[in-house]
Amino acid sequence: MSRVLVTGARGFIGRHTLAPLCAAGLEVHAVSSHEPSRAVLPPGDVVRWHHADLLDPGSAAALIRGVRPTHLLHLAWYTQPGVFWTSLANLDWLQASLSLLRAFGEAGGQRAVLAGTCAEYRWERHTHCVEGRTPVCPATLYGAAKHSLHVLAHAWARQVGVDLAWGRVFHLYGPHEHPDRLVSGVARALLHGEHADCTDGHQVRDFIYVSDLSAAFAALLSSDVTGPLNMASGEPVSVADVVAAVAHATRAPQLVRMGALPARPAEPERLTADVRRLREEVGWTPTVSLREGVQRTVEWWREADAGAGAAVVDAEARAAVSPRAGESPR
Amino acid sequence: MSRVLVTGARGFIGRHTLAPLCAAGLEVHAVSSHEPSRAVLPPGDVVRWHHADLLDPGSAAALIRGVRPTHLLHLAWYTQPGVFWTSLANLDWLQASLSLLRAFGEAGGQRAVLAGTCAEYRWERHTHCVEGRTPVCPATLYGAAKHSLHVLAHAWARQVGVDLAWGRVFHLYGPHEHPDRLVSGVARALLHGEHADCTDGHQVRDFIYVSDLSAAFAALLSSDVTGPLNMASGEPVSVADVVAAVAHATRAPQLVRMGALPARPAEPERLTADVRRLREEVGWTPTVSLREGVQRTVEWWREADAGAGAAVVDAEARAAVSPRAGESPR
Repeated sequence: MSRVLVTGARGFIGRHTLAPLCAAGLEVHAVSSHEPSRAVLPPGDVVRWHHADLLDPGSAAALIRGVRPTHLLHLAWYTQPGVFWTSLANLDWLQASLSLLRAFGEAGGQRAVLAGTCAEYRWERHTHCVEGRTPVCPATLYGAAKHSLHVLAHAWARQVGVDLAWGRVFHLYGPHEHPDRLVSGVARALLHGEHADCTDGHQVRDFIYVSDLSAAFAALLSSDVTGPLNMASGEPVSVADVVAAVAHATRAPQLVRMGALPARPAEPERLTADVRRLREEVGWTPTVSLREGVQRTVEWWREADAGAGAAVVDAEARAAVSPRAGESPR
Repeated sequence: MSRVLVTGARGFIGRHTLAPLCAAGLEVHAVSSHEPSRAVLPPGDVVRWHHADLLDPGSAAALIRGVRPTHLLHLAWYTQPGVFWTSLANLDWLQASLSLLRAFGEAGGQRAVLAGTCAEYRWERHTHCVEGRTPVCPATLYGAAKHSLHVLAHAWARQVGVDLAWGRVFHLYGPHEHPDRLVSGVARALLHGEHADCTDGHQVRDFIYVSDLSAAFAALLSSDVTGPLNMASGEPVSVADVVAAVAHATRAPQLVRMGALPARPAEPERLTADVRRLREEVGWTPTVSLREGVQRTVEWWREADAGAGAAVVDAEARAAVSPRAGESPR
């Protein structure tokens, strides 16, 4: 039986990978530096939880020795909004990821899937990202650390005979998202009866609902596709469309102030993903429309914020709301 | 006064950087995991030696705290011929290099020069390497680790305000070279009256005499040029020309057997360096011709091997001679 170790298993993407991985018949081992929570366990499925901080030297090796996974889904990274672009924690996570990979290979691991980012690509004004064709030239320390990990992991995997796929994450949203991000920020403001100040919203991005992205990662892990793949819906929308969907779901369009924030000149106007590898080689397509995904996200925030005040909001969701139209990729 | 820390200071390139750095008026601190040797000290110059293994966690930080260098020349890496292409030590050196850079930045370091490699470039049949234009796509773990370090160091340096240059080393030769390499291997065989089996020698490479390369690194460090630079002579020669120069210097051309070894199909026919950045921006040109450099190398081997038998040959030069026409870049 195939045995997968999922890192970052309590994170935004990771928590939604567990159910599809169980459904695919894998023995699922989940690791998180947070204490495991019942809330992220797929009902009726058996996920074996491990508590470890992969940044501790030696912890990856000990974990791998204990689990001896055949498969690895490595999603853990430093993702604090606003800060992650420049944090030196990116270097720590690169090192931790290399230790994890080496231990995985030494223990006989067969297939690894790692999370990359659209921030590896060179962002022009209009960038349609095609794997292996669009230049990779990260402008940030975050993108550089992810790109470096890909370069190293690719060379290492080829040499030691591990199958490796690298899933470049584009823009995502959904329940459990950090409240500083676009959909969550606007949703919470509108739900609280506050104004949501946005840019003009003309930027076009590829947004994907988080459980769709997680399912795509699970499908990629179960496939034999290797190399870099864009993990995205393939359905570009404008930021204005996304905000309109939130306004619709909250029934508070009058609180949205498009154009109240200045455009960010350094940002691409269009940043979109070619998803042919994901659709044709992995055979995966998204199932949740923007309207449906936004509706679910708004409902989740309504319950999370209303349930028992701020106290029930997840640990990830404690920071103040500060809606921004220019969403950061993971 | 500027204070430079040189890593790998007892190595093939490093040992020849000390004199030009002293001559440029820098306070030179040299670090090596080997015990310092009088033989590498430039006569009359003051080099402060530090004994440290940068692979030990914490050693880089302790060293930097003690020295507080304004400049860093980072040459140390794993370079065992034949093995370095695939060794997992490349990952260790990436990590050690990142630790060194971070400590350097935290201690107020201003300018760093690091050694890269021509193996970062994508090698086609004929590749003339131009910085920023020729695709970077390493085929080996060594090249991947160096390229990764460059990507990270570049992003880190821009963010923290350190000036950083990245010198991509092409093919080199000279005294103290590992005896498995082309010039040393052929020279020792011929000096011992043995046959030297070579490929047909049609491969064209950029060879540079080691002290020229070291002087180029010293010049780069003292300049304000940043980004990637090819560190090479800009004077391509065929491997057959190099072997002929060795045969001439040893006066044993009859012992050379060109074509006795099969060509290596995976090797580029031409791998040459565009050196405009080095010549025009740094203002550095080589001073030692191939004939002169080979003559010096042959003389060095004659003395080293003859002095008191194998015992006087440096620690780097203990392995058996096995002449190969396809030289490995550092």
